[in-house]
Amino acid sequence: MIQSTSAPSTPRATRGKFRPPALGDVQVGGFFGPRIDTIASVTARILLDRCVEAGMLDQIDPDRPGPGLRIPFQIGNSKCTTQMFWDSDLAKSIETAAYALYRKRDAELEARVDAIIDAYGRLQAEDGYLNSWYQRVDTKPRWSNLRDCHELYDAGHLIEAAVAYYQATGKRKFIDIMMRYADHIASVFGTEPGKQRGYCGHPEIELALVRLARATGERRFLQLARYFVDERGRQPHYFDAEAAVRGDDPADYHFMTYQYNQSHVPVREQRQVVGHAVRAAYLYSAMADIATEFADETLEPALEALWAHLTEKNLYVTGGFGPSPDNEGLTFDYDLPNDTAYQETCASVALIFWANRMLGLGPNARYADILERALYNGALTGLSLDGTRFFYDNPLESRGQHHRWIWHKCPCCPPNISRLVASIGLYLFGVADDEIAVHLYCDSTAELKLAAGTVRIVETTRYPHDGHVSLTLEAVPAAPFALSLRIPGWAHSAELLLNGEEVDVAAVTHDGYARVLRQWTAGDRVDLTLPMPVETVHAAPEVGADQGRVALQRGPLVYCLEEDDNGGKLNSLGLAATGGFVCEEVPDLGGVVRVTAAGWRETPAEPRALYSAMAPNRARAILSAVPYYAWDNRTPGEMLVWIRQEGM
Amino acid sequence: MIQSTSAPSTPRATRGKFRPPALGDVQVGGFFGPRIDTIASVTARILLDRCVEAGMLDQIDPDRPGPGLRIPFQIGNSKCTTQMFWDSDLAKSIETAAYALYRKRDAELEARVDAIIDAYGRLQAEDGYLNSWYQRVDTKPRWSNLRDCHELYDAGHLIEAAVAYYQATGKRKFIDIMMRYADHIASVFGTEPGKQRGYCGHPEIELALVRLARATGERRFLQLARYFVDERGRQPHYFDAEAAVRGDDPADYHFMTYQYNQSHVPVREQRQVVGHAVRAAYLYSAMADIATEFADETLEPALEALWAHLTEKNLYVTGGFGPSPDNEGLTFDYDLPNDTAYQETCASVALIFWANRMLGLGPNARYADILERALYNGALTGLSLDGTRFFYDNPLESRGQHHRWIWHKCPCCPPNISRLVASIGLYLFGVADDEIAVHLYCDSTAELKLAAGTVRIVETTRYPHDGHVSLTLEAVPAAPFALSLRIPGWAHSAELLLNGEEVDVAAVTHDGYARVLRQWTAGDRVDLTLPMPVETVHAAPEVGADQGRVALQRGPLVYCLEEDDNGGKLNSLGLAATGGFVCEEVPDLGGVVRVTAAGWRETPAEPRALYSAMAPNRARAILSAVPYYAWDNRTPGEMLVWIRQEGM
Repeated sequence: MIQSTSAPSTPRATRGKFRPPALGDVQVGGFFGPRIDTIASVTARILLDRCVEAGMLDQIDPDRPGPGLRIPFQIGNSKCTTQMFWDSDLAKSIETAAYALYRKRDAELEARVDAIIDAYGRLQAEDGYLNSWYQRVDTKPRWSNLRDCHELYDAGHLIEAAVAYYQATGKRKFIDIMMRYADHIASVFGTEPGKQRGYCGHPEIELALVRLARATGERRFLQLARYFVDERGRQPHYFDAEAAVRGDDPADYHFMTYQYNQSHVPVREQRQVVGHAVRAAYLYSAMADIATEFADETLEPALEALWAHLTEKNLYVTGGFGPSPDNEGLTFDYDLPNDTAYQETCASVALIFWANRMLGLGPNARYADILERALYNGALTGLSLDGTRFFYDNPLESRGQHHRWIWHKCPCCPPNISRLVASIGLYLFGVADDEIAVHLYCDSTAELKLAAGTVRIVETTRYPHDGHVSLTLEAVPAAPFALSLRIPGWAHSAELLLNGEEVDVAAVTHDGYARVLRQWTAGDRVDLTLPMPVETVHAAPEVGADQGRVALQRGPLVYCLEEDDNGGKLNSLGLAATGGFVCEEVPDLGGVVRVTAAGWRETPAEPRALYSAMAPNRARAILSAVPYYAWDNRTPGEMLVWIRQEGM
Repeated sequence: MIQSTSAPSTPRATRGKFRPPALGDVQVGGFFGPRIDTIASVTARILLDRCVEAGMLDQIDPDRPGPGLRIPFQIGNSKCTTQMFWDSDLAKSIETAAYALYRKRDAELEARVDAIIDAYGRLQAEDGYLNSWYQRVDTKPRWSNLRDCHELYDAGHLIEAAVAYYQATGKRKFIDIMMRYADHIASVFGTEPGKQRGYCGHPEIELALVRLARATGERRFLQLARYFVDERGRQPHYFDAEAAVRGDDPADYHFMTYQYNQSHVPVREQRQVVGHAVRAAYLYSAMADIATEFADETLEPALEALWAHLTEKNLYVTGGFGPSPDNEGLTFDYDLPNDTAYQETCASVALIFWANRMLGLGPNARYADILERALYNGALTGLSLDGTRFFYDNPLESRGQHHRWIWHKCPCCPPNISRLVASIGLYLFGVADDEIAVHLYCDSTAELKLAAGTVRIVETTRYPHDGHVSLTLEAVPAAPFALSLRIPGWAHSAELLLNGEEVDVAAVTHDGYARVLRQWTAGDRVDLTLPMPVETVHAAPEVGADQGRVALQRGPLVYCLEEDDNGGKLNSLGLAATGGFVCEEVPDLGGVVRVTAAGWRETPAEPRALYSAMAPNRARAILSAVPYYAWDNRTPGEMLVWIRQEGM
C-alpha cells in the first residue's frame, strides 16, 4: 500500500508536542547537501537579482522614485496585480538568503539583505504599518480589501523572513521591525470592540505568527494567529462587509465563491479541501499549529477530514494537488489530469508545511509519507539541478512544450521551493520532551534538545538512492528517551538493528514509526534497512486518465520517461506485463538511480493516418526512466509519468 | 483506412461545377426524416421562444423600448458581449424556421417570423444599414470595430436567413431588405477610392453573399464576397488601422494574434488551420465557394493544405475540431484531449459547410468522408433527440458533469445545428450539368435538374443502420449523365448492382466515387451494399490520450459507452483483444443499433487507496455501446469514446 488510508490510532495528544529542530541543530549532507550548496552559491543571489530587476527595490525603498504600476491589473475583473504581493516574493527570497547564509557565510549576500532590511526600516510607518504596495503604489486605503490584496499575506512572509534571518545571523533589526508590525496588526484586527474582524484572503500570516511566537517566546503572537484562524468564515462575512464599505457588490467576485479562499464556512466546519491549493494548505498548516500550541482538539475533526479528502481523492502520485489553472486549485474529486496538471510547486511546498505541522501532535506515517512524497517529487521538480530555473505548474505529462522559467510574473514558486530545500534540515526530525522522531532520512548530523539534555545523532545514508540508514548516537542525556524511526509506507518490509541485534520491527511499530524507548548510551548505533524495489503504482479506477497505466516508484521517488532517453511519442511505449527492472546508479542529473525495463514501442500500421482501423505494430524496446524531480534538465522534450503497461 | 490521407488526383476543375440542390428538390425520410420533423414541430418554436426570452426582439424592434446591455461585457478585456451578435442568433433561428415551414406548413410559426421581419424592415436605416446592436444599444460609430464586433457576421447570417425564408415561402420582403443592406455594405467596403478596405473579424458574410448571389442570380454579390476573401490579411493590416482610428493600441488585443481570426496573412498564403475553429471553417467555406464560382485555381493550394492540416493532424474521430475553450479553437498539432475537448458543435457544422463546398469542384471522398464523419457525430450530438436541448462543447469523455443546455449566453450552436439538420437534403447530392453525385445516403426522393432535364431519384435505405442502398431513377432526361455514388472510406468493400447486374466497383471508382455514365432509362435501379462491421479505430501515436485505446465505429457512426448501460467508472472497462461484436437494432434512443462486446471490468486490489502497488483484479464483463450522437439523452452519467483494449 502506497497511500496510507488508515485512520489515526490512539489520541495523538498523548504523545506530546513535537516541534521542528532549530535552524542550527541539523547539518545536512547526502542527497540534499549539494542542493543546498547550489542554493547558497547560486540561487539565493539569482532570486535577489530577479526581484531587483522586476523593480521590487524601487517599490520598497522610500528614497527611490516609486515604480508605479509595473504589472498591469490582470487577475480577472478584480483589479488585482501580482505586484501587490512583491513584498512576499522579496521576503521569501530573503528567507532563502538567510538559510544560505547559515549554510555558508557570504558577506556580499548578507550586505544586500541588510540593505533591503534597512529600506524596510525606512518604509515602516510611525504606527508600525509596513506594506510597500499600499505605501508606495496604490492610493486606496490600507486594509480596504483583505479579500484580494494580500496585505496580511505580505506581512506573514516578511515575518517568516525576519524569523529566519534572525535565527541565521543573530541580527535583530528585521525581527524587531516585524514584531512592531505584528503588534500594529493586533491593534487593528480582533474581536475586541473597535477592532476590525478581518482576516486575509490568502492565509499565511497565521502560520508566520506561530513561527514568530516560537522564535521569540512571545505568546501574544500565538493569540493573534488563533484569532485569524478562528474568525475565518464566520457570519456576517467579513469580505461581504468590506466590499460594501468599498461600494462594491460582494457578489461581483471573480472567483465566484469564498471556497476559493477557504472562508466559505468557519474552519472547524470544513471537511473538504476546496479552492486555491496554496491558500488551503497554508490555512490548514496554521490550524495544525494552533491545534498543537493550544492543545485544541476541536480543530482535529476538520484537519483529519481535510487530510483524508486530499490524500484519498485529490492528490497526484507526485504529492502535488490542485489540477486547475483557473483557480490554481481544486475542482472535483479524482480530477487528476496529467498533461494539464497545474499542481503548482507552491502547493506541494504548502502541503509539506501542512504535513510537517500535522506531525506536531506525534509521529504518524499518515502525514510523513505524504510529506516525503510531496518533497521528493512535486516540490523538488520546481528547482532545476543547477539552481537557476523554476517550474511553476507541474504536469505529469508533457508533449515537449513545458519547460522551466527564468522568472514568472507571479514569482511565488522560485523562492518558495528554494527556502524549503535550503531549510530541509528542519523537516528531518520532530523533537518532543522525551522523544525524537526521524521523519525523513538524509545523511546529516543533528544536535537535538530534549528535556533531559542534548542528543547528538550522526546519520549516514545514501538515501534515497538506497535504503540503508545508520544512526549513531554520539551523545545522549542521562534519562531514557524514545527514538522513533519512520517506516515508509512504500517499504513492504524493514530490518532494524540496535547495536547489531535485530529488533522486531512489527512489534515496536505504531502509526508507521518504529519506536525504541530506552536508556541510550553514547555510541549506540541503529541500522535501518528499507528494501527499494521498483514498484508499479496503480491509480484508483476513478482516475480515468491513469487506467491501463502505471507509475514507477522506487523508494520515495516517482519516475518518468523523458524523450532524451527514449525518443519521442512516449505514449507509443509500454512496459512488458512482467519482467524485472534494472536499477543502475549513474552520474547523470546530479547522480540518480536510472531504472530500465523491458517493454515495447508501437508504430502505426498506416503511418500518415490520423485514425486507422489497423492496429499498430509492436517491437521490443527498453524503457529508461529517471526521477521525476530531475526532468527537463537536459535536451527539452516529452515527459511521461503514467506509462502504459501490457495487460493493463 | 478510416481517414483519407490521399492527395487529390486529377485536377478537379475538369469535373465541372457542382452545386447543392435547391431546397425543394429533396424530400428527406429515413434516418433524418424524424429529426427534421422534430425540428419542425418542436425546435423551431423553442429557438424563437428562447430568443424572445433573451430580449432579442426588444433589441431589433424600434417600436419597443431598447433592452440596454443585457449581457455584460465579458469577452476578455475586449469590451465585447455576445449580445453584439444577437442578430445572428435570431437569423439562424429564422433560417431554421424557414426549413421547418418548408417541411410542414405552420401558420403561427410563419406569422411569428413575418413579425420579426417586419421589425427588421422598420429598423433598417435610410441608407440600408441594419444592425440591431449598433442601432439600438451601442453608441459607438458603425463599422468602428470590425475585428471584434461581428457587424458583418450579423449581416451574413441575416442574409442566409433571408435566402432560406425566400426559398421556403416565396416571400420577398426579407431578401429585399437584405439585398438593400448588401448593396449598402458594398458601398462602404471595397478597394475603390473612398471605400474602407475592411472585412469582418468573424468570417460568415462571404459565404452568405455567395448564397445570396446563387439565390438571386445577382453576380455583384459574388464580387463583394470575393473582395472580402481577397482583402483578408493584407498589409497594412486593416485591424491595426481601425484600432488606431479608435485610439486603441492594436497590440492590446485579447486574443494576441490575428491567427485567431485567420487574418494573420492573406488567405492564399495560409497553410495551417489556426485560431477560432468556426471562423476558420466559415472562411475556408467561402474560399471554396469563390474557387468554384470564379474557377479560381489560385485558392486551391491553400484550401488543399488547410484541409490536409486539419484532417491529418487536428481532427477528432468524431469529426469535430478545436480542442481549446480559451480560443474556441486550435492549439498545436495532435492536441486532441478527450475529457476537455471543446469541439464546439458550431465547428462541426462549419466543417460540414466547408467540406460541402470543397465538393463544388467535383465528388471526392477526401471531403465527403469528413463531411459524413462530422455530420453523424460531432454535429448531430449537439441536438437532443427530443429537439429541446443542446450541446455547445463536445467532450469525448465525461465523468458525469457534462450535459445539454436549455440555452447558452452565447446561443450560436442551437440554431446552427438545427438549421443544418433541417436542411440536410441540400447535402445529400451535388448536381453538375451532366452528373449527379450522391454524397450521403438517406431514404429520400429527389428531383435534380441537369442541363438536359430533371432526374427523379427514389432512394430507399435504412442507412446508417445498415448499408443497403437502393436508388430507382423514376424519371431521366434523354441525354446521358453520370451517377456518382460515394464509396465511404470506412467501407472495406462495396457491391454495386445496376438493374441486378454486378458492376466492377474498383474499375469505376475514382476519388472514392463509383461513377456510372450512361444513357439512363426510367425505372433503372442501382443497388449499393456497404458492409458495416464494427471497426476498432486506432489513433496516431502522437495523440497520447488515445494510445492503448480504440474507438468503435460502425458505418459512419462513432460509438461511445454510457454509464446508463455500463455502470460508472468507464475507464475500468476494457474490450477483449479479440472477440466479435454483436449488433442489435433496438428502439431505444430513437432507434439505434446497439453494439455489445466481450470485455472486462477492473476492481481495485485496495478499494479505498488512491494509489496502490497492487494491480487491479479483472472480471469478465459485457460492454454496451451506443452512437455518440445519441449520448446524454437518458439518465445523466459518464460517457467514453476511446475505450481501453486488452493487448493495446
